Amino acid sequence: MGFDRLCEAILEKKNPTVAGLDPKLAFVPNFIKEESFKKFGNTLEGAADALLTFNKGLIDALCDIVPAVKPQCAYYEMYGWQGVKALHDTIAYAKEKGLFVITDGKRNDIGTTMEAYAAAHLGEVEVDDAAFAPFGGDALTVNGYLGSDGIHPLLPICKEKDKGIFVLVKTSNPSSGELQDKMIAEETVYRTMGDMCEQWGEDTRGAYGYSAVGAVVGATYPAQLGELRKALPHTLFLVPGYGAQGGGAQDVVPAFDARGLGAIVNSSRAIMCAYKKGDWQEEDYAKAARAEAIRMRDEIAAALK
Amino acid sequence: MGFDRLCEAILEKKNPTVAGLDPKLAFVPNFIKEESFKKFGNTLEGAADALLTFNKGLIDALCDIVPAVKPQCAYYEMYGWQGVKALHDTIAYAKEKGLFVITDGKRNDIGTTMEAYAAAHLGEVEVDDAAFAPFGGDALTVNGYLGSDGIHPLLPICKEKDKGIFVLVKTSNPSSGELQDKMIAEETVYRTMGDMCEQWGEDTRGAYGYSAVGAVVGATYPAQLGELRKALPHTLFLVPGYGAQGGGAQDVVPAFDARGLGAIVNSSRAIMCAYKKGDWQEEDYAKAARAEAIRMRDEIAAALK
Repeated sequence: MGFDRLCEAILEKKNPTVAGLDPKLAFVPNFIKEESFKKFGNTLEGAADALLTFNKGLIDALCDIVPAVKPQCAYYEMYGWQGVKALHDTIAYAKEKGLFVITDGKRNDIGTTMEAYAAAHLGEVEVDDAAFAPFGGDALTVNGYLGSDGIHPLLPICKEKDKGIFVLVKTSNPSSGELQDKMIAEETVYRTMGDMCEQWGEDTRGAYGYSAVGAVVGATYPAQLGELRKALPHTLFLVPGYGAQGGGAQDVVPAFDARGLGAIVNSSRAIMCAYKKGDWQEEDYAKAARAEAIRMRDEIAAALK
Repeated sequence: MGFDRLCEAILEKKNPTVAGLDPKLAFVPNFIKEESFKKFGNTLEGAADALLTFNKGLIDALCDIVPAVKPQCAYYEMYGWQGVKALHDTIAYAKEKGLFVITDGKRNDIGTTMEAYAAAHLGEVEVDDAAFAPFGGDALTVNGYLGSDGIHPLLPICKEKDKGIFVLVKTSNPSSGELQDKMIAEETVYRTMGDMCEQWGEDTRGAYGYSAVGAVVGATYPAQLGELRKALPHTLFLVPGYGAQGGGAQDVVPAFDARGLGAIVNSSRAIMCAYKKGDWQEEDYAKAARAEAIRMRDEIAAALK
């Protein structure tokens, strides 16, 4: 309940970071692509096979360092249903290796449609008398613009199956303020959304005090991270914007509580493309990813001390 | 440019409605399911095959009545990558039959990730020296909570490939007001989002005066429909909430301009499940869908007079 499994994994690995799996084909080492294209041609099947092979190598190298991975749906949909199959297979492989999987889909809709997304990404679907978990992630990012009708359909699955969601609150991008920083009476839109997260999560709090309804808050806005940490004591933060987008270790400190919990910091490209920096051979892309994951873990641990 | 193709199709068919293709398995007639399960077992493959067969029958029956169809991604993702393949095949079949396809994914993200969604749903992706259209829709619904960073990546594809987007502005659900009706200084959040749509679309206006950046505005809020029609003269509306959610023909009238353009009204379940009402045999589900689509067309035409 309430992200307990994620909190435990963070404590066990002493690492509040999540590795993003956003595999553009350009990120994949050539030797992997060549192998996949040999098997499937330079087709969507070939691309999807290359993504999956790349991801498996990364997962093998990272699974004892990071508590969680975050596949970004867009980069799989980009390669058609074949890419979406690679998303499925990536999630299955990560689960097999004991990782907590945050499916980054930013899904949103209402009522039975949102129930369909909930079943797809966190739950099960029935076909006649058989049941299947279509994607099988542990948590899903969602967009709360539609209000409670878009969030309530997720909560029963969170409770019954011990899953979680992260609602976009204050996103990491430069234009996030165009709407999110606007004032509603005395409050910003993002704070209003954050307060809704606290409310939505009320019945799903776990042993660490956090509910199953988390919030996405960008590392690029440290002041807001601190404001929201104080205002939303039961809401776990998924923190993008570290590294490539400019957020540093000091910037994410305000996202944490005194126990070093309350946030999980994402890094995607810096880990996946670590082999493109320095003197790595592309065959060592997984080793390079691991080294970067360790560096990031230690950097955040030092900042939190 | 700017939804011209959709406007032309609306004028040609004298019908500003779009048929939603949200195929829950429970909507599919038994004789289709039995056939599919015989071929593929009661598996996700079997479910996906049944959805596709159902959709093809609906498309055949509707393609000379409605200008557009709107597959809702959630109901395909719900059946795993196999369901997503059925989404792909449904879109391909609808295009073959000359229909304008609005992919209802409410996708949202920023920068290169949003570019990946744009390529997935509206554009092309390169694999080595080959190019593929992963899903091939004509328009995509998107969520603008992240501001311009989530919309700008779509605009080049809209321009180059004559595609469009619909941004969620005032959604049809009961709780849409929790955020969207809040006042920002003198304006509501939904109006702020609507004004952003006008701006985002500025460079993509077509022959009918509408830009490639449309807005989702619910039939369940007729006063807001009228307010937004006046305020956003270059923004085409996708109008959900007709029928099942309670919006009627009179309610959608304010969404239209004097030419009977400016809006396309969605109906999903009422069309798809028409055979479940009245004296239809389930084998005649497609005929029933066609009859309902004609009824809806005529009802709106009468209200617009």
